[in-house]
Amino acid sequence: MANPTAAMLVIGDEILSGRTRDANMHFLAGRLNEIGIDLKEVRIVSDDGPDIVAAVRALSDRYDHVFSSGGIGPTHDDITADSIAEAFDTPIDIRDDADALLQAHYDRQGLEFNEARKRMARIPDGALLIDNPVSAAPGFTLRNVHVMAGVPSVFKAMVESVLPTLTGGSPLLSETVRIERGEGDIAGPLASLAAEFPTLGVGSYPFQKDGRYGANIVLRGTSPDELARARGQLLELFPKDAS
Amino acid sequence: MANPTAAMLVIGDEILSGRTRDANMHFLAGRLNEIGIDLKEVRIVSDDGPDIVAAVRALSDRYDHVFSSGGIGPTHDDITADSIAEAFDTPIDIRDDADALLQAHYDRQGLEFNEARKRMARIPDGALLIDNPVSAAPGFTLRNVHVMAGVPSVFKAMVESVLPTLTGGSPLLSETVRIERGEGDIAGPLASLAAEFPTLGVGSYPFQKDGRYGANIVLRGTSPDELARARGQLLELFPKDAS
Repeated sequence: MANPTAAMLVIGDEILSGRTRDANMHFLAGRLNEIGIDLKEVRIVSDDGPDIVAAVRALSDRYDHVFSSGGIGPTHDDITADSIAEAFDTPIDIRDDADALLQAHYDRQGLEFNEARKRMARIPDGALLIDNPVSAAPGFTLRNVHVMAGVPSVFKAMVESVLPTLTGGSPLLSETVRIERGEGDIAGPLASLAAEFPTLGVGSYPFQKDGRYGANIVLRGTSPDELARARGQLLELFPKDAS
Repeated sequence: MANPTAAMLVIGDEILSGRTRDANMHFLAGRLNEIGIDLKEVRIVSDDGPDIVAAVRALSDRYDHVFSSGGIGPTHDDITADSIAEAFDTPIDIRDDADALLQAHYDRQGLEFNEARKRMARIPDGALLIDNPVSAAPGFTLRNVHVMAGVPSVFKAMVESVLPTLTGGSPLLSETVRIERGEGDIAGPLASLAAEFPTLGVGSYPFQKDGRYGANIVLRGTSPDELARARGQLLELFPKDAS
């Protein structure tokens, strides 16, 4: 049976402006592969309502799961929750359970639970809250969209809250073979190998470093046996240059 | 006049699988902002022909420029050039100018210009070549799509070959103010500031580090005067905590 599929939606002007380097995508990609959910697409859009709505609808239609990051804080540029509600024509308002969580958190901290902070209790009707053990303000799951914070420590914690609730498939395994030959010399034999192992992904990633060049050949699949056989054949094809 | 807009299309299973962390997006975002082209969206798709074709069509329709990275090497998984040709219903074949460039390069290196390497001379009809000073194999521009390599050193060189041919607008400038207060305390005054400066982007990026917390407020715009005024007001709003 094919693995469930997923997309990630990163909401953030700060990444598109080149100010910040996204850290969440790499983390999510690794964790999803471990549990057998195939990450098929990532989109990064700006903090713009219509753009978020359009992306959520497109990705939610196409993939089994959508994971979003960013835009669920208390400031004026945090418009993700409202955009998700709009994408699914779902009412949204301050919800008692989220409100109580936040009230307790700010009481503990001795901080005022003011109007801006109350915005973080706005949750679309019918959504499930995602636990945030770091800073209390919850994420939520509406239909197949999991809405999480952009701050990396909070994003990670929320991913770990959500993943146990999902049904994965076969973990994606990989083997890497480093071949110190020009990619053009590797290409012919590699295409034959890829044709012989149609269930494996066979990728070639060239490198040039410290005067040495070649390619890392990455074999990906769910069967350890197939991967081991393909790896063995690849090493035999380039006995002097592969490792 | 509004700045030209752009999208980036990253083609690469290796990023979706979590194996590789993309480096090109951050570089391109920074360079585009410097010359006044607004990066509005990034998509990362796998090495899959129909996915690439669909993304190219969608992004090319919507933005003034599309910059792609990855998938133009000699191996079987390098399908970008053919996918771009398909997206625009344009014929593609080995082209004499690209062929001559590559032939000369491999002659100099004493390497065989074999069938796999010849694939890198496949260029859609009517495309302009993009110079590759690193490893010869050219990128190309077809309509408003600039097709470049995924290897970071080559991607950077190709971006520097393309940018001088484009007409930019007003560079996007930014000012960052660090405020050591909870985002919930900053949110109200910040929303008023954002409303007062409608031509500026005002983003709030919370941090928690070494026991300190607060937010970096990033003001973005094309007018140095407006930015300076907004920054001044922001510092006055939080005299004890902003820097």
